[in-house]
Amino acid sequence: MIIQLEAGISNDRKDKVLNQLQAKKLKLVDVKTQLNHYIVAIGKTDFDLRQIGHLDGIEDIHVVTDTYQLVSKKWKTAPTQISLGDGIFIGDGSLSLMAGPCSIEDEEKTETVARFLAENGVRIMRGGVFKPRSSPYSFRGLGIEGLKMFYSVCRKHGIRIITEVMQVSQIVEMYDYVDVFQVGARNTQNFNLLDELGKVDKPVLIKRGISGSVDELLQSAEYVFSGGNEKLILCERGIRTYETSSRNTLDLNSVPILKDKSHLPVIVDPSHGIGIRDFVEPMALAAVAAGADGIIFEMHQEPEKAASDGAQTLNFEETTQLIRRTRALFDLRSSW
Amino acid sequence: MIIQLEAGISNDRKDKVLNQLQAKKLKLVDVKTQLNHYIVAIGKTDFDLRQIGHLDGIEDIHVVTDTYQLVSKKWKTAPTQISLGDGIFIGDGSLSLMAGPCSIEDEEKTETVARFLAENGVRIMRGGVFKPRSSPYSFRGLGIEGLKMFYSVCRKHGIRIITEVMQVSQIVEMYDYVDVFQVGARNTQNFNLLDELGKVDKPVLIKRGISGSVDELLQSAEYVFSGGNEKLILCERGIRTYETSSRNTLDLNSVPILKDKSHLPVIVDPSHGIGIRDFVEPMALAAVAAGADGIIFEMHQEPEKAASDGAQTLNFEETTQLIRRTRALFDLRSSW
Amino acid sequence: MIIQLEAGISNDRKDKVLNQLQAKKLKLVDVKTQLNHYIVAIGKTDFDLRQIGHLDGIEDIHVVTDTYQLVSKKWKTAPTQISLGDGIFIGDGSLSLMAGPCSIEDEEKTETVARFLAENGVRIMRGGVFKPRSSPYSFRGLGIEGLKMFYSVCRKHGIRIITEVMQVSQIVEMYDYVDVFQVGARNTQNFNLLDELGKVDKPVLIKRGISGSVDELLQSAEYVFSGGNEKLILCERGIRTYETSSRNTLDLNSVPILKDKSHLPVIVDPSHGIGIRDFVEPMALAAVAAGADGIIFEMHQEPEKAASDGAQTLNFEETTQLIRRTRALFDLRSSW
Amino acid sequence: MIIQLEAGISNDRKDKVLNQLQAKKLKLVDVKTQLNHYIVAIGKTDFDLRQIGHLDGIEDIHVVTDTYQLVSKKWKTAPTQISLGDGIFIGDGSLSLMAGPCSIEDEEKTETVARFLAENGVRIMRGGVFKPRSSPYSFRGLGIEGLKMFYSVCRKHGIRIITEVMQVSQIVEMYDYVDVFQVGARNTQNFNLLDELGKVDKPVLIKRGISGSVDELLQSAEYVFSGGNEKLILCERGIRTYETSSRNTLDLNSVPILKDKSHLPVIVDPSHGIGIRDFVEPMALAAVAAGADGIIFEMHQEPEKAASDGAQTLNFEETTQLIRRTRALFDLRSSW
Repeated sequence: MIIQLEAGISNDRKDKVLNQLQAKKLKLVDVKTQLNHYIVAIGKTDFDLRQIGHLDGIEDIHVVTDTYQLVSKKWKTAPTQISLGDGIFIGDGSLSLMAGPCSIEDEEKTETVARFLAENGVRIMRGGVFKPRSSPYSFRGLGIEGLKMFYSVCRKHGIRIITEVMQVSQIVEMYDYVDVFQVGARNTQNFNLLDELGKVDKPVLIKRGISGSVDELLQSAEYVFSGGNEKLILCERGIRTYETSSRNTLDLNSVPILKDKSHLPVIVDPSHGIGIRDFVEPMALAAVAAGADGIIFEMHQEPEKAASDGAQTLNFEETTQLIRRTRALFDLRSSW
Repeated sequence: MIIQLEAGISNDRKDKVLNQLQAKKLKLVDVKTQLNHYIVAIGKTDFDLRQIGHLDGIEDIHVVTDTYQLVSKKWKTAPTQISLGDGIFIGDGSLSLMAGPCSIEDEEKTETVARFLAENGVRIMRGGVFKPRSSPYSFRGLGIEGLKMFYSVCRKHGIRIITEVMQVSQIVEMYDYVDVFQVGARNTQNFNLLDELGKVDKPVLIKRGISGSVDELLQSAEYVFSGGNEKLILCERGIRTYETSSRNTLDLNSVPILKDKSHLPVIVDPSHGIGIRDFVEPMALAAVAAGADGIIFEMHQEPEKAASDGAQTLNFEETTQLIRRTRALFDLRSSW
Repeated sequence: MIIQLEAGISNDRKDKVLNQLQAKKLKLVDVKTQLNHYIVAIGKTDFDLRQIGHLDGIEDIHVVTDTYQLVSKKWKTAPTQISLGDGIFIGDGSLSLMAGPCSIEDEEKTETVARFLAENGVRIMRGGVFKPRSSPYSFRGLGIEGLKMFYSVCRKHGIRIITEVMQVSQIVEMYDYVDVFQVGARNTQNFNLLDELGKVDKPVLIKRGISGSVDELLQSAEYVFSGGNEKLILCERGIRTYETSSRNTLDLNSVPILKDKSHLPVIVDPSHGIGIRDFVEPMALAAVAAGADGIIFEMHQEPEKAASDGAQTLNFEETTQLIRRTRALFDLRSSW
Repeated sequence: MIIQLEAGISNDRKDKVLNQLQAKKLKLVDVKTQLNHYIVAIGKTDFDLRQIGHLDGIEDIHVVTDTYQLVSKKWKTAPTQISLGDGIFIGDGSLSLMAGPCSIEDEEKTETVARFLAENGVRIMRGGVFKPRSSPYSFRGLGIEGLKMFYSVCRKHGIRIITEVMQVSQIVEMYDYVDVFQVGARNTQNFNLLDELGKVDKPVLIKRGISGSVDELLQSAEYVFSGGNEKLILCERGIRTYETSSRNTLDLNSVPILKDKSHLPVIVDPSHGIGIRDFVEPMALAAVAAGADGIIFEMHQEPEKAASDGAQTLNFEETTQLIRRTRALFDLRSSW
């Protein structure tokens, strides 16, 4: 159950509300985000809501029976819109495109990609500087210095940055150079990281786990929200199945399901999802047709020479075509 | 390796070819379909093809290194088109829509659906009369009498029939009343059934197995093709994964992958794929965006009262919208 | 709900029982096996059983809420014992070992294996003559002539035969030469085959599907039982998962779960389960430790030259050790 | 490739070795563990090893072609033994039993369990104080104060502690109160945590990921080893599959496979693996039969009242029986 408190509720009134709820033997969690103030009450909610709902200081009250609460569409039916400033939004009814290399490489290459994206109206650039790698001997990214360079290049072109944060201690050092923190598929259930991102006032995109369920993704988002950060984006990136003809099994079923269960925007990553360059575009189109709010994909001026993930990375020409077609399809969808 | 023989090759010449190949220690399979004559040669094909290719009576010769041969795009790059007569085609570059109830029920209901489909330009009706059911105590369909009724209703409206065949002995009794034989997901590897369908001159749609791989689907198609029947259609219908928020995991990755590996048309079944009525349309749209040649889906005048699968069945209004939107999306795709 | 009728109940009395049940709006299935007579009633069973239970002609009555009925342990707690004659039993509290090559090859080889098994006290030999193969170009077994040879060799050594039946039409031709019909993993949900095997009076071993659930395996057994054949054996043979370091994922969890849910004996196939020769023994031992009633495994005098599945096939020495150790472990388990 | 350096090699000699290797264009990683000094060389190793192997200061040199190096059995065939002091070993050829509640609760309960374990000869107690939970609203454990209490109780009884560490910052605060750090299934690929545990001189048990492959588990262990810590234990705890009759699918195939691929000890967790109290013992027995070095399982004086995981937790009587039986089975296995 979610009890949304009025802005500026007095401590006195709030205590009264809490006392009333405690009498119902509910477990109470006080959630103060950058935008609102809620009490999440866990437990049996089969009493008459009017007993509480009429109290002064309560703006609204909702019973949510899902395994998650604040990210559920059951209490907030309006879609969440996330502003990155400068007129750049995610979830506002436009198509969000996020593109860039798997790993950030040198400044010249970064500059070339950023300029290309700006020219094509793509205003969010992706690129890893901290890379999770199965083997300790693989390239792990340029680190914080790479991020600073990445940031200064992007700012010049009016482009926002999304990049992966892998551990709690990186949040502070990355903070000034990041527009959207990305939680990778191996960290979807890194609960300490989610807790800390709840304290941050920048948007967080959470990828579905390697074999994470839709409900687990929503529960992970609930961690960040209940930690205080409402600026959340969900990302489908493919799940692990027995099938080996694709790198992962991009699960587009999750798109309408997530849009139905949650008010948060849903982005799809076809690059990791199918993992085969030639098929990134059809999967991107399919994602838009299924109702996604945006696409995040890997591209590079010379995919064959990319530091990582070249086999699923588009070149400029392929990128231009993907952008044009996803936008045309999105326009058709929006006309319905 | 596929050796395509010229039409009307003499036995004498054919024997010469076979002898040449046998000398290479290849395993040879003589495949005579309704349309063509091939020899499939399995084994080491690292010799100089010109030794054989110049022989009289050989039209063409192709090395195929896949685990399947005749269904591979490596030797036949042109897409296979299947004619159902009366100007109805599958795989000819138009969008094929196949719709109807899970199970055929009484004549009146069948008539209502058939008329509705005809009015909306849908010219292939689906409907089961032999139903595979996990439990022996569930409704198993109307059987052959139901099929005869289904057929006579559809013929009146100029509509073609696709329906599931479950075992070898049904092929003969069903033959006169079927336009497309459907092999269900539990029979994808029923090799005896596939063998027999190779002897039939009517099209066969093969569903991907409950947890079948893309390669297994193609190998199952290879059974039918090498048995003599080239009129094949592949169908993605969702795979079994750990995820429980959808009935199955409709795997749209398979669409571009199958289109790349094979010359056969690819149809998608969003109804079984996601299994939730409200999400059938977005998945149908996604399938078209991913490159599918058509959609097969479940609809009924009163889904709530359907004999089976009501939870994933569209009503008439929803069907009309799905038809209109998939066509609009298909038109956009075709314009590229 | 299962209503067990008394042997020799009169038609008159039976009709009375049926009428009583029909009045409750239950769906009734009359099941007459070689051993017993039951009525399976599907539907709401929340009425007072005493209304029916006191009727003459009813031996016993049980409410079973599982998705399967007659194979459930809820109505029959005593384990099912299956006699193959000559003092050979499955499920009687002894350890059943079944061994032999993947495919039956020539008579000499068959003779060598049969003699070896007899000398080691293994009294059931496995071996395929109809082989389900993913590719139509692979070796498909010796067929019915191979079976006749296999049978005559085994009879000489007092050994029973278990072999796979792939389609309905094979049942009759195989009948005289088979002691246990095996339903393979690709046919677990070949419902027509299961129906027909219900009419046979020889035991049937059903393998779990390629990605079949425990409940589906039990429902498939229910098909055969409700068709009239109580002589059923369940077989765990590994499931399909994302893991590629083993051929399949032998799921030993299913052993205690099946033993708890059903009164039928449970056999484990470690050869297909893990698919790696060196690890067949540890998995066989683990299966016995988990509570299996027996083991079915692949062995051959020269695994390297076996017609199929050599990579998971034991030689004679390895077989001797596996037999000795599984028996020692089974003795320890029996002592508890 | 692993180049094991002699203890006390001079910097000068080491540089010579490095120069030789660098000339081969290999990527070199200098690994100094508490026990040994290695250079791991990644890249093409198809040159004549004698060019390097004869150099002074090199103790041994091994080509390892796996995706992991130092944890491979290809260079170190002797099993790794881990001492916890006081004559307590893991991997020394004895059966290691680790038992205790899911979550550490109050001191009295902890004391009762510890005493019971000591009386039964179980010398390692498990119990969580930092609990990873899907939902932010679930009980997350007693934290560091709980650990201190847990530690002081165990030390009194001569019992060692294994408990989960969830994030880097916990390592230091937990260090003095932990004998074995456990990395949970959601953190198997938390690479920063693995890096840091490489710097610790206490043993680390790594659980296989929720849907982690065997190779990924070994690569995660490689992270810790290459970070400097050789005291590693692998743990099979069940994987995620489509099957819902068990909580997870305990994959005992991994036991012989891991023992074959790696020199590290392998422990099995049947409690999380199957997740059903009645079946924990058969799966524990199966694990020992499959070759496991030990078992870690959940038990509690009153499972029905446990703070978490009660449904898979054994009581004292069940624990006593599991201990007696796994030991008897282990003795039988050791006699072979």
